[in-house]
Amino acid sequence: ELNVSIRDYQTSHRTIQLPGLINIAAFVPGLVSRDSSDLQEVTKASIAAGFSMIRIMPVGKDGAISDVKSLKIAQQNGKRGGYCDFNLSIAATSDNASQISHAAGEVGSLFIPFNHLSDNISKVATVEAHFDAWPTHKPIITDARTTDLASILLLASLHNRRIHVTAVTTKDDIKLIALGKEKGLKVTCDVSIYSLYLSQADYPGCHLLPTVEDQAALWEHMRTIDVFSIGSLPYQLAHFLKKPTEIAVGIADALPLLLTSVTEGKLTVDDIRTRLHDNPREIFELHDQVGTSVEVEIDRPYTVEATSSWSPFAGRVVKAAVQRVTFQDQIVCLDGSILPVPARGTDMSTHGAMPSTAAVL
Amino acid sequence: ELNVSIRDYQTSHRTIQLPGLINIAAFVPGLVSRDSSDLQEVTKASIAAGFSMIRIMPVGKDGAISDVKSLKIAQQNGKRGGYCDFNLSIAATSDNASQISHAAGEVGSLFIPFNHLSDNISKVATVEAHFDAWPTHKPIITDARTTDLASILLLASLHNRRIHVTAVTTKDDIKLIALGKEKGLKVTCDVSIYSLYLSQADYPGCHLLPTVEDQAALWEHMRTIDVFSIGSLPYQLAHFLKKPTEIAVGIADALPLLLTSVTEGKLTVDDIRTRLHDNPREIFELHDQVGTSVEVEIDRPYTVEATSSWSPFAGRVVKAAVQRVTFQDQIVCLDGSILPVPARGTDMSTHGAMPSTAAVL
Ligand SMILES: [Zn+2]
Ligand SMILES: [Zn+2]
Ligand SMILES: [Zn+2]
Ligand SMILES: [Zn+2]
Ligand SMILES: [Zn+2]
Ligand SMILES: [Zn+2]
Ligand SMILES: [Zn+2]
Ligand SMILES: [Zn+2]
Repeated sequence: ELNVSIRDYQTSHRTIQLPGLINIAAFVPGLVSRDSSDLQEVTKASIAAGFSMIRIMPVGKDGAISDVKSLKIAQQNGKRGGYCDFNLSIAATSDNASQISHAAGEVGSLFIPFNHLSDNISKVATVEAHFDAWPTHKPIITDARTTDLASILLLASLHNRRIHVTAVTTKDDIKLIALGKEKGLKVTCDVSIYSLYLSQADYPGCHLLPTVEDQAALWEHMRTIDVFSIGSLPYQLAHFLKKPTEIAVGIADALPLLLTSVTEGKLTVDDIRTRLHDNPREIFELHDQVGTSVEVEIDRPYTVEATSSWSPFAGRVVKAAVQRVTFQDQIVCLDGSILPVPARGTDMSTHGAMPSTAAVL
Repeated sequence: ELNVSIRDYQTSHRTIQLPGLINIAAFVPGLVSRDSSDLQEVTKASIAAGFSMIRIMPVGKDGAISDVKSLKIAQQNGKRGGYCDFNLSIAATSDNASQISHAAGEVGSLFIPFNHLSDNISKVATVEAHFDAWPTHKPIITDARTTDLASILLLASLHNRRIHVTAVTTKDDIKLIALGKEKGLKVTCDVSIYSLYLSQADYPGCHLLPTVEDQAALWEHMRTIDVFSIGSLPYQLAHFLKKPTEIAVGIADALPLLLTSVTEGKLTVDDIRTRLHDNPREIFELHDQVGTSVEVEIDRPYTVEATSSWSPFAGRVVKAAVQRVTFQDQIVCLDGSILPVPARGTDMSTHGAMPSTAAVL
C-alpha cells in the first residue's frame, strides 16, 4: 500500500496517504430495529471520516444480535446498502451458546459482553460453553474488566484461543493484558479513541471515561494497544451528558485527534496506520480493500466547529483533517463532504467463512 | 507403607492400618499471640485423631504470620513443643511482597488469602508481585473464590506455576478447577471435611457452608479433590453458632466421618489414604514420617458423645473410630486418649529448604 507524504512548502503542511481505515467497533443504535437507517448513517459518517470498513458491534440501543431472528433484521437493514464495507457479529447471552454456532458462518465474530448494555453474563460456565461452541478459528471479542477480564483470559489460556479485549479503560486492565502478552497469551486489545483524549477530569463523575491516572497508563502502554477503536463510548458519553445522541457521534473526531498527536510528537503516522488498518485486518481476518485510500492533511491548525452534531471537541484546535477518501477507485469524499456517488459498501460478514481456495472476492 | 485390614469375624468389624495422616490446613487461633499454648492443644488433638503432621495456616484469630516479627512469635510458641510434627507458612498481604522471600527458607509455603480473616488482597498486581517474589519451587496456597479464583489461576497459568486452592466450597469453583486440570493447569485443591458433611440445609443462613447443591457437586467431583482438610471451618462455624470456640474443634470428627462414608460405600479407604497422606505429602513436599501409623476400626456403630468440646455431630451415629496411633515407633494414643509420653513433634518448617544432599532428617 501507498505511503506518500508530500510537504507543501508554501503553507508548511503535509499531505499523507493512508490505506482505507478500519473501525473495529462501530456502534449502530438501531441495529436490530426494523427499517432503521442507522447503518446507512453510520457508514456515511465513517467513509467521510476515512473509515472504509467497519465492524459493527452486535449490541445496539434497543437490542442485540443474539439469535437468528435479530440477525435477520440487521441483515435486512444492511441490504439497503452502506457507504463503506461492514460486517456483523453476534453477542453471547447466558442461554444462546447452543445456537451461536449456527450463525457462525454468517457473522464476523462472537462478542462476549460483560459490561455492555446487554444482560450481564459473568459465570465462567456460560463463557466456557461459548468457547466450546464457537469455531476455533473465528475471533472472540469481550469487554470484560478486572476480575471478569482475568476469568475470560484464563479460559482463553486454557483453551489456547485468541481473544480480543475491546475498549480497555483502566491501568489494571492494560497491565494485565501487557502481562498476558509478555507470557505468551494470545490476547489483543483496543482502546477507544475518546479514552485517549477525554478523562474524568473533563467530566467529573463520568465513569465511562478513564481517570487521569488510567489515561496516562493507556498512553504509557501504547505498545500493548493493538487497535484504536471508536466504539460506543461517544454515544454513551453524549447520553450521560444529556446531549442529543447523534447516531454518528465521535466518528469524525477520530483522525483529527490522532493526527494532531502526530504533530505533537506523541504518536507516529505508523502508530496510526498499524492500529487502524494493519492490526485490525490481521486480528479480524478482514478482506483487503483494493483501490481504497485516505488522504489526510496535517500541520494546519483549525478550530473544530460546533455543528448540529455534538462533539466534546468543538472549539478545540486540531491540526489535521481528512481531505480525500477513495473507495473502490472512486473519489467518494472531498474535505469531509460525501460526493453524489452511489453507496457501494458491502456486507462482508461471510468473508472468511469459506475455504480460501473458494475466495469470494 | 502398611495397609493391613483385619476383619474380626466375631463382632463383624475390621481394623485398618493407615500411615500417619496429614492435615494440610490446621487452624491455630492464638498462632501469633505471645505465650499462647494453642499450638500444643491443636497438636495434641491432632495426634489423638490420627494426624501426625499438620500444616498450620498462617492466619490466626488475632493476626497472621506476615513478617519476620510475627513469624518469630509463632516459632517461639512452637519451641515449647507439639504432640505431632508441624510446619508454619507465611501469609501474603498487600504490601509484604518484597519481604516474603526473606522468610521463604523458614516456612513451608506462601498463603495468598482472599477471603480469610486477614485483609483482602484482590489486586492482580499485588498477587503478581507475590508470584514474582516467591521461590518457584515452593508451594503457594490460596482461598480465592469465583472471579478471584479465576484471576489467580490465570496468573499461575501465565507463570507456569503450581497453585493449591484450599477449602473449595462451591460447584462453580470445583468445576473451574476440574476444567483447569483437564486443560493441563498445575492446580490442586482441598475441601474441608465439614463441607462434605454439613450444608446450609443444616444451618440456614450460614454461608460458610456449601448449599445442598454445592455439596452434591463436591461429592460428584471427588476425583478433582486432591486433599481433605480440616481448616478453619469448624472454628468459624462454632463462632457463627455462638458455641464455645474450643481450640481443637472439628479435629476429632474428621476420620470417623470419612470412614463412616467408607462403610456406606461412598468412599474407599484408598480415597482417604490418598487425600490425607499421599497427595498432601507430594503437593507440599513433606517429610516421610517413619515409625508412624494409625489404626482405625470400622463397622462398629456408636453415637458421638456430647463432650465439653462442641461438635455439630454429637448425637449422630458413626461407624468408625481411631483405635491406636503410633508416632516415631511409640504408641502415643489408645482409643482417643493420649498416653503419658513426652511431646515429640518437631517444627518441620525448614524441611526441603536445603538441598537434598544435605538432608536434615
Ligand atoms: Zn495543502
Ligand atoms: Zn472448554
Ligand atoms: Zn488494506
Ligand atoms: Zn476474500
Ligand atoms: Zn475389634
Ligand atoms: Zn510475574
Ligand atoms: Zn508417610
Ligand atoms: Zn528431609
